[in-house]
Amino acid sequence: MEFTTAEVASLLKGSVIGDENLKLTTLSKLEEATEGSLSFLANDKYESLFYTTKATAVLTHKDFKPKTETAATLIAVDDVYGSLTILMNAMGGDNSILPVEISPLSFLDKEATVKGDIGIGAFSYVGKANIGKNVQLASQVYIGNDCEIGDNVKIYPGVKIYHNCKIGNNVIIHANAVIGSDGFGFSKDEAGKYIKMHQLGNVVIMDDVEIGANTVIDRASLGSTVIHKGVKLDNLIQVAHNVEIGDDTVMAAQVGVAGSTKIGKNCMVGGQVGFVGHLKVADGAQIQAQSGIAGSVKEENAKLYGYPAIDYNTYLRAFATMKTLPDMAKKLRALEKEIRVLKQGKDD
Amino acid sequence: MEFTTAEVASLLKGSVIGDENLKLTTLSKLEEATEGSLSFLANDKYESLFYTTKATAVLTHKDFKPKTETAATLIAVDDVYGSLTILMNAMGGDNSILPVEISPLSFLDKEATVKGDIGIGAFSYVGKANIGKNVQLASQVYIGNDCEIGDNVKIYPGVKIYHNCKIGNNVIIHANAVIGSDGFGFSKDEAGKYIKMHQLGNVVIMDDVEIGANTVIDRASLGSTVIHKGVKLDNLIQVAHNVEIGDDTVMAAQVGVAGSTKIGKNCMVGGQVGFVGHLKVADGAQIQAQSGIAGSVKEENAKLYGYPAIDYNTYLRAFATMKTLPDMAKKLRALEKEIRVLKQGKDD
Amino acid sequence: MEFTTAEVASLLKGSVIGDENLKLTTLSKLEEATEGSLSFLANDKYESLFYTTKATAVLTHKDFKPKTETAATLIAVDDVYGSLTILMNAMGGDNSILPVEISPLSFLDKEATVKGDIGIGAFSYVGKANIGKNVQLASQVYIGNDCEIGDNVKIYPGVKIYHNCKIGNNVIIHANAVIGSDGFGFSKDEAGKYIKMHQLGNVVIMDDVEIGANTVIDRASLGSTVIHKGVKLDNLIQVAHNVEIGDDTVMAAQVGVAGSTKIGKNCMVGGQVGFVGHLKVADGAQIQAQSGIAGSVKEENAKLYGYPAIDYNTYLRAFATMKTLPDMAKKLRALEKEIRVLKQGKDD
Repeated sequence: MEFTTAEVASLLKGSVIGDENLKLTTLSKLEEATEGSLSFLANDKYESLFYTTKATAVLTHKDFKPKTETAATLIAVDDVYGSLTILMNAMGGDNSILPVEISPLSFLDKEATVKGDIGIGAFSYVGKANIGKNVQLASQVYIGNDCEIGDNVKIYPGVKIYHNCKIGNNVIIHANAVIGSDGFGFSKDEAGKYIKMHQLGNVVIMDDVEIGANTVIDRASLGSTVIHKGVKLDNLIQVAHNVEIGDDTVMAAQVGVAGSTKIGKNCMVGGQVGFVGHLKVADGAQIQAQSGIAGSVKEENAKLYGYPAIDYNTYLRAFATMKTLPDMAKKLRALEKEIRVLKQGKDD
Repeated sequence: MEFTTAEVASLLKGSVIGDENLKLTTLSKLEEATEGSLSFLANDKYESLFYTTKATAVLTHKDFKPKTETAATLIAVDDVYGSLTILMNAMGGDNSILPVEISPLSFLDKEATVKGDIGIGAFSYVGKANIGKNVQLASQVYIGNDCEIGDNVKIYPGVKIYHNCKIGNNVIIHANAVIGSDGFGFSKDEAGKYIKMHQLGNVVIMDDVEIGANTVIDRASLGSTVIHKGVKLDNLIQVAHNVEIGDDTVMAAQVGVAGSTKIGKNCMVGGQVGFVGHLKVADGAQIQAQSGIAGSVKEENAKLYGYPAIDYNTYLRAFATMKTLPDMAKKLRALEKEIRVLKQGKDD
Repeated sequence: MEFTTAEVASLLKGSVIGDENLKLTTLSKLEEATEGSLSFLANDKYESLFYTTKATAVLTHKDFKPKTETAATLIAVDDVYGSLTILMNAMGGDNSILPVEISPLSFLDKEATVKGDIGIGAFSYVGKANIGKNVQLASQVYIGNDCEIGDNVKIYPGVKIYHNCKIGNNVIIHANAVIGSDGFGFSKDEAGKYIKMHQLGNVVIMDDVEIGANTVIDRASLGSTVIHKGVKLDNLIQVAHNVEIGDDTVMAAQVGVAGSTKIGKNCMVGGQVGFVGHLKVADGAQIQAQSGIAGSVKEENAKLYGYPAIDYNTYLRAFATMKTLPDMAKKLRALEKEIRVLKQGKDD
């Protein structure tokens, strides 16, 4: 990378506050920046680092006013994260993990169909699948029979996709994720033993979805487990059979969604949240990390927290009081005593 | 599939309420059913879908009485889930992910012994193991030296089984699960540094066990980590060293069991539950999702909930009151004030 | 193994209480011990097993006094766990899972550099990496371009390490762990759609670290996600981008650490704990299983529990009172009534 402050501002539709001709050679965090670094202040928590950074220039929000004079030139923009995204994507990075050719050490079934450019890494197995254009399958990937893979799909090492699953366009799946494993379905026989229910459905992943490392999405018992357009799932997430996750919902790591639960659009789900099965969660829900969703959420844009989850502010207030519980119990006992005394006085 | 309503009823020992000669060509969920679909009503939550389904016939419990007349013919059975299991298993599904031959792209150690038919997928490695009849190892599987694998075992892509582990008959292990990794055992040396304790034991998995995708079962430090007959473990579960899980216990996804804990038979464990180490949990425990089991459970068939877990109903009542805590605290302050006033009045 | 009681005591700098010439042929748990077994009593919880063991000799703490006479000879030591570690490591175990040669079924890039002995298992892929001495990569491992791997590193089957990550000396990584996957970084565009932020940083793992099976450590957006010297991470842990974990901190299974959080040295983190992003946790924190760390921890050696986590003892006391909440609420209502009566009496 080699830009001037003016060039960066122009790319980001921002404005330079300071020298327009400084040379920027790298993008760095505030505390790691050196001469030539372009850095950024995107989160107020880090403002103190702004005053000590050695960065040559810093991306800031256009409303940001430094409390003291600083050496760094500012590049003021409307949206710091958005600007960073543009810059980071312009810089690219090493994509050698995603092959552009078919390795002679891989296996591609003769009956598979491929629409355009494809890369398949060493030790990957591709069954009788239909594959779109510009698809990159890294090493040690497994794609089962009758899978459909869209265009511009990137699949990282060790991902396993069972038979008959559908993957849309522009989907990214990270290492060792599993798509289409059997749902957890059993019925008890007369002797009380669990009998496996064959899981006959599949998984459908729509366009623009990203799925984290070691995440698991089970196939439906009948029909489909559906991950809608634009959903972003972090690492180590469990999505059970027949779940649906609505457009543009994001889930942090280690969330678990039990069977047949339907989650709406544009929800934000914190890490380690759990959803009971057979629920409906309305669009726009914001769910605090580690919460347990034990009932359907009917109101849109609900803010939830707790175990089981309740309204975010109600939980926070209740939890704050909870700390004082032993003290409240003590006061209650004192009051009971005082009232006994008062009643005796009155009865005298 | 192509059956008449009478044939399905006969297979399931149920009875047709309506036309016995309707043709059924597929099994579908109520809301996805079309002409020719056999559907089912197994969970009361979905009764409203029953009245609008386009299914030709619906499996229902023999005691179910529709509230209004419906177009669908009913097939009434004693156990809807059990009947579904029979039907779904009769329909089979695509098992091409499990190979029936030894791929020339796999490695099978010359000193391994194999008792009967075996399939080994591409890029799988099988060490000096003893393997039973009718075993299917999918692609990219690893089986270490001195492992014993029973009859009718199905192992999905990417599963790794470390050396010297024992797998019983009819066991199913899903993709990217890990069996026999080192237990988390360290001791501190004089300088306060952690020193690894070699984990010399193994994992023993009994007959009829199913293990979910990306689940991990650590080998014992000494002796065995034991998963008893008929246990069903969902995805992303952690089973630490020297744990035992009793016959026919089922665990939902993301449960964690710390070292040396012994869980009884016929327990039902909700998702994301955690067990502290060195506990004993009696048979038949039912543990609500996300609970934290911090002490041994001595009573059989205990119902537990909470963090740390207590009796299910006690927790629910306490949590319901917890929401009113800020209000209780306010009332308590008001009472204290009133009593001060009353006492002053009395002192006057 | 074939030692006398005196030889074991000498190795462990302990003393024999009983016969010095007994032959010990195996190491066993108390309840599984037989003639010739050396067993151990390391945790008071198991003292009852001590009195019924069939072990020939038992390792005990030097301050341990049996309550009744026992058949077993004691070997008294300063530190039972430390002594066990020495013994177990002396006994070794089967390491055939870690190869000592380069399998002809593996792929090693011609431009990779290797400093000394190396083993690479079947179906493993090693890119243009720099690799130290005495490194063992098991089967189906992936090492991306520009990775640096130190000396004496052991990597188990199915581990995937993305490009440009740095692994120190004496590091152990268990099966199907993922190192260097993309951090979960998105910004919203004007239409409210999430745009992926390229993750340009890497993961740095220092010396003497052990990482559990199916654990995931994401690469930094910029800079490095850093796991410092001596850290031990159990299975199924999530470490997000730009996290740092300090020297000799240990984390039990299924912990999740959100982005940019910095955890100090010598912390002990229980299973399933979650950390919110952008926090700082001081050295020596002890965090109870399943706790939720929602704010920075400034005091060293803090003991924390709860959701959100507060002081350990405060939480325990508050939770104990919480069970009595319905009763407290009832008493409060009774008091309110009594005061109404008293006031009426006074007003009369």
